[in-house]
Amino acid sequence: MIDDIYPSRVAGEPAWLPRKDPVIHTPWRFDAPLTEGQCERYEQDGFLVIEGLFEPEEIAVLQRELEAMRRIPASLDENTLIAEPNSGTLRSIFAIHEQNALFRRLAADERLVSIVRHILGDEVYIHQSRLNYKDGFDGKEFYWHSDFETWHVEDGMPRMRALSISVQLADNHAVNGPLMLMPGSHRTYVACVGETPEDHYKQSLRRQEYGVPDRDSLTRLAEAGGIVAPTGAAGSVVLFDCNTMHGSNGNITPYPRANAFLVYNAMSNRLVEPFGGRAPRPPFVAARDVAEPLKPVGGGLVETRAA
Amino acid sequence: MIDDIYPSRVAGEPAWLPRKDPVIHTPWRFDAPLTEGQCERYEQDGFLVIEGLFEPEEIAVLQRELEAMRRIPASLDENTLIAEPNSGTLRSIFAIHEQNALFRRLAADERLVSIVRHILGDEVYIHQSRLNYKDGFDGKEFYWHSDFETWHVEDGMPRMRALSISVQLADNHAVNGPLMLMPGSHRTYVACVGETPEDHYKQSLRRQEYGVPDRDSLTRLAEAGGIVAPTGAAGSVVLFDCNTMHGSNGNITPYPRANAFLVYNAMSNRLVEPFGGRAPRPPFVAARDVAEPLKPVGGGLVETRAA
Repeated sequence: MIDDIYPSRVAGEPAWLPRKDPVIHTPWRFDAPLTEGQCERYEQDGFLVIEGLFEPEEIAVLQRELEAMRRIPASLDENTLIAEPNSGTLRSIFAIHEQNALFRRLAADERLVSIVRHILGDEVYIHQSRLNYKDGFDGKEFYWHSDFETWHVEDGMPRMRALSISVQLADNHAVNGPLMLMPGSHRTYVACVGETPEDHYKQSLRRQEYGVPDRDSLTRLAEAGGIVAPTGAAGSVVLFDCNTMHGSNGNITPYPRANAFLVYNAMSNRLVEPFGGRAPRPPFVAARDVAEPLKPVGGGLVETRAA
Repeated sequence: MIDDIYPSRVAGEPAWLPRKDPVIHTPWRFDAPLTEGQCERYEQDGFLVIEGLFEPEEIAVLQRELEAMRRIPASLDENTLIAEPNSGTLRSIFAIHEQNALFRRLAADERLVSIVRHILGDEVYIHQSRLNYKDGFDGKEFYWHSDFETWHVEDGMPRMRALSISVQLADNHAVNGPLMLMPGSHRTYVACVGETPEDHYKQSLRRQEYGVPDRDSLTRLAEAGGIVAPTGAAGSVVLFDCNTMHGSNGNITPYPRANAFLVYNAMSNRLVEPFGGRAPRPPFVAARDVAEPLKPVGGGLVETRAA
């Protein structure tokens, strides 16, 4: 087993460990897929919002496909369906890049993959993908967490060389429990207390109870960098580093939230045995034994679909 | 019993009834305590935000008194303490204008009472008062409701001639589950379905289950007027009509919410028997048998306290 430079859930007290990996793994050049200013913001904040990356008709097609998926076609693997803790309402469908042609195409889209390759400085693959749907009126909160903490402890992701992309498929209001991020939090690894029980993922996909950052750390991170909730029309894209602290409030408004969520990992950072010492989570949550990197596909999503 | 022009919780289907009362009961004049623009906004939206009504040192004194009250001095009537549904954390203290000298003084403050008298066109009294405190990290949501619906059915308030004032005692961020209001919703009375059980108030102060507006009505009101969540520094004052639909999301951020909440009713609109036909709620929730109107007190809050 390789040395664990990001231990968590092993001590009785939380701890702050410095990040030991770059945030952007490629020096900026004039032909980079992001502007120098965008790269600086991503490096500093740990996230970046991009508007207008997709055409309105592409977003419309993704939204229609989302609605079709919510009706749970028989082809879906029922293990990949996650319900709200109380109401039983469908909240997420995992492995959408494997179960749906359009979302597979989205995951490989050159506009996304070129940015991801630049940031991660490597060829990449999909570590996890899902459709998230948060109904109006009784959408539940999702508590603060660093994805990397979970991916490291439960999945065996060695280093911070992964990122998430959320493609917003509903308008993001300030009031409907949007994604909240703590700018600058990606530079600190908050080691959580406690141990991880067996089969934790079955619970944690619904409600996180282990690997939860302590309140004092969250307070200090919020004091240092504030809390930002990007708002914008459907179609906006949020990229964020694997260690950026994020979460979302519940939602009593009539406005739903929906996004396609894609996690990219560097090929050089593929999973090893989980650092928490338990059995790894299933492949639809954390891809293992990946042989080939993603092959980027150019052109628009709509033409592809009509073909 | 007087005729019920705002029946609710009597039918199997929700209904929209038109408002039968003015929003502002006094024609605007140059010497009014609000500008003509402020009155127009209140009339149109059903609420108004006023910044700078109190001096920073007055807000600081109110905040210190809030903290003292949260330590639950022995003088407090324990019936007036309301806890969060799950955690048991203190959420509200009722009847603060009767249990605390500074909040009694605040309720009678001429800056507030002159505005309230103008809007309600009458002498006024405190129908209900409370301190609300919504902790960071696990503050629960408060679902959409019109206060008047409850006050009418459960307390016997005859007409829409009351308003609420929230004096913000913590900074209001967009992300910490702030008060949300539906502009224009005060012009429609949404009659709710069902009946009111005995002793409903013991539950409803924690979590509302009866007198809940239907989702279709909420969707239509939000489509018509949107949803606004006023943000601003501690000290800002939000006035809203007794029939304005409002609620708040939960709060996972470290930022607490706190406000002093004062409900004023017109003397001519004092309570009769509850229109729901049950026993009235206790006086600390809804003042009954009020003989005298509030006597406004001029000057600052701080001098009063030092005296």
